[in-house]
Amino acid sequence: MVDELAVLRDQIDEVDQQLVALFAKRLKLVAGVGEVKSRQGVPIYAPDREAAMLAKRRADAEAQGVPPDLIEDVLRRAMRESYASEKETGFKCMQPTLGKVVVVGGAGQLGGLFAQLLTLSGYTVEILEKDGWDQAEALLSGAGLVVVAVPIDQTVAVIERLPTLDERCILVDLTSIKAEPLAAMLKAHQGPVLGLHPMFGPDVSSLAKQVIIYSEGRGSEQYEWLLAQMRIWGARLQVVNAEEHDQAMSLVQALRHFTSFAYGAHLCAEQADLSQLLRLSSPIYRLELAMVGRLFAQDPVLYADIILSSPRNLEMIRRYHTHFGELLTQLEQGKREAFVEQFATVSEFFGDYADIFLKESRNLLAQANDSRIS
Amino acid sequence: MVDELAVLRDQIDEVDQQLVALFAKRLKLVAGVGEVKSRQGVPIYAPDREAAMLAKRRADAEAQGVPPDLIEDVLRRAMRESYASEKETGFKCMQPTLGKVVVVGGAGQLGGLFAQLLTLSGYTVEILEKDGWDQAEALLSGAGLVVVAVPIDQTVAVIERLPTLDERCILVDLTSIKAEPLAAMLKAHQGPVLGLHPMFGPDVSSLAKQVIIYSEGRGSEQYEWLLAQMRIWGARLQVVNAEEHDQAMSLVQALRHFTSFAYGAHLCAEQADLSQLLRLSSPIYRLELAMVGRLFAQDPVLYADIILSSPRNLEMIRRYHTHFGELLTQLEQGKREAFVEQFATVSEFFGDYADIFLKESRNLLAQANDSRIS
Repeated sequence: MVDELAVLRDQIDEVDQQLVALFAKRLKLVAGVGEVKSRQGVPIYAPDREAAMLAKRRADAEAQGVPPDLIEDVLRRAMRESYASEKETGFKCMQPTLGKVVVVGGAGQLGGLFAQLLTLSGYTVEILEKDGWDQAEALLSGAGLVVVAVPIDQTVAVIERLPTLDERCILVDLTSIKAEPLAAMLKAHQGPVLGLHPMFGPDVSSLAKQVIIYSEGRGSEQYEWLLAQMRIWGARLQVVNAEEHDQAMSLVQALRHFTSFAYGAHLCAEQADLSQLLRLSSPIYRLELAMVGRLFAQDPVLYADIILSSPRNLEMIRRYHTHFGELLTQLEQGKREAFVEQFATVSEFFGDYADIFLKESRNLLAQANDSRIS
Repeated sequence: MVDELAVLRDQIDEVDQQLVALFAKRLKLVAGVGEVKSRQGVPIYAPDREAAMLAKRRADAEAQGVPPDLIEDVLRRAMRESYASEKETGFKCMQPTLGKVVVVGGAGQLGGLFAQLLTLSGYTVEILEKDGWDQAEALLSGAGLVVVAVPIDQTVAVIERLPTLDERCILVDLTSIKAEPLAAMLKAHQGPVLGLHPMFGPDVSSLAKQVIIYSEGRGSEQYEWLLAQMRIWGARLQVVNAEEHDQAMSLVQALRHFTSFAYGAHLCAEQADLSQLLRLSSPIYRLELAMVGRLFAQDPVLYADIILSSPRNLEMIRRYHTHFGELLTQLEQGKREAFVEQFATVSEFFGDYADIFLKESRNLLAQANDSRIS
């Protein structure tokens, strides 16, 4: 009887070995695509090609009795690897006559990533670090692009400290707030100015599909090529004015970081038994715990800087705390009906997004459960 | 030049078509495995086989220059489909002489899922719903297993309302609190009693790797087969006493649900622009928004019931609110250093988990980004 199972498992192993061989073949073809794209200056992320290809394979799958979602998930996963490998072949240089690039803070993680991508795109990149300011003038002289990639609380000071740049030079920052750095850059420099906020950590395998927010400063026709260059890297660019950006980030960054911090601190104060919580947890709770816990493997100073970057952030967090307290008091007073009514109001506010999020998170929770080990 | 890309893409499409065909073959083999397993009574989730198989394919991948993580992710995804398909062939019946099963609340989602799995395992399953209590005595007479699957706030009342059951009958509940229902079952019934808490929604494609918590009531040797039956369905069983369970759930369920509710209510009160937030969001914020938003596609009464199921829950939420306020006041007073110090304390509390969570969430965030559409 057991042999019956062993025979089938051997056959599955054989199929899986063929899968490995096919992926090896696919990766070789993809490397070729990367080489052609880099020569032609085609963005590594091609949404239309991706959508058309997935639609065809879903149809094939359906015809052969294979769940289309299985094929789509597998191909999306394979494409992530493709994007990472296409990166290695380098990128077309969109502005060969630019002259050198200086990344201020280029030894940091995010600055380093931009320095690497610019180098892969054929630019000459120099790094200006804390200990190099005595040679800053010489280093910056004749630069075609200066990227400021320093901690938030130093950005404005570093911008103000810059020597006069060439008027054609493009001045860019990568800070997670936009209004102040942009104002400082416009004041410090007469030439083209652009504010960027990359919405990903420095540990991404490629920029494919990653969001970079930009806020226009001055001279857009002169930095248009830089936006095109980032699109070639695979990024999705989203434009927003600096003021609106900072408002949205009070929610997207400051409030979320602070609540994760407070939740971790609460678990610590309660001396919660993490291994027991994990043993007993549903995939969704494990995921939530992971999202909180990951914060504490990172740099506290970065989070303090983000939260304290604007008084607006603390005001937003205070309003949330007040709402939270009001809703809680209501439940403590036994007003179960009020809870249900408010819930309905919020459901209405979320509208179609509630269902979209339910579907999206269901798939992610299934993926989290796929790789569950303990 | 463009033709060069088209030629490569055609070759990739060919490889992908072969992938679809291989998955079709794999699913057929897996259906055979399901059939054998169901005859032999082998659990659908076999952790050792899974680990051994993944290790071999990772080694194959490495030898062929394919990233091992790519193969592991693809095979894990394929296995999810296998588990779902193995379910369809039915399960070995571990207690053929049991007599009928009655699921009280079996028309509900979770009760319905258990009724389905028990039917697939060869048991005769009857449903007792609200409108059937006038025939309850006849229906329950001679039952070998009674499963109570009704809303939390009705569980104890339903248990108390049950007619006297056969002394060999096993009485089980599926409520997300355990102390009260277990006490009520022990009081209402003289025979074997078992408390269960399935840690997943009714929308899972199979029970493979899903956690079911159980709290022992009475007569474990008589319900041992039921635990074995659930293992055959693929579940991971975790034992914990009822009191500890309820304490852990104050954190795992009540506090998380309430904070998600409060966060959604806050977004609503602030009239946040969801489409803009999504446009500007990093994968992690999108995921967090999805985790909050999914709540509001669900039933408020269920969440009210869970949060209000014990005064301990509201006390836990109140303590969190107080901690949160204290930490916030500190930042408002400009005590940046204190924030950084507390952060370090919490990092120490998380210990190795912080890095584990960072790694785990990195992979999930990459998966979230893979399927990013807008």
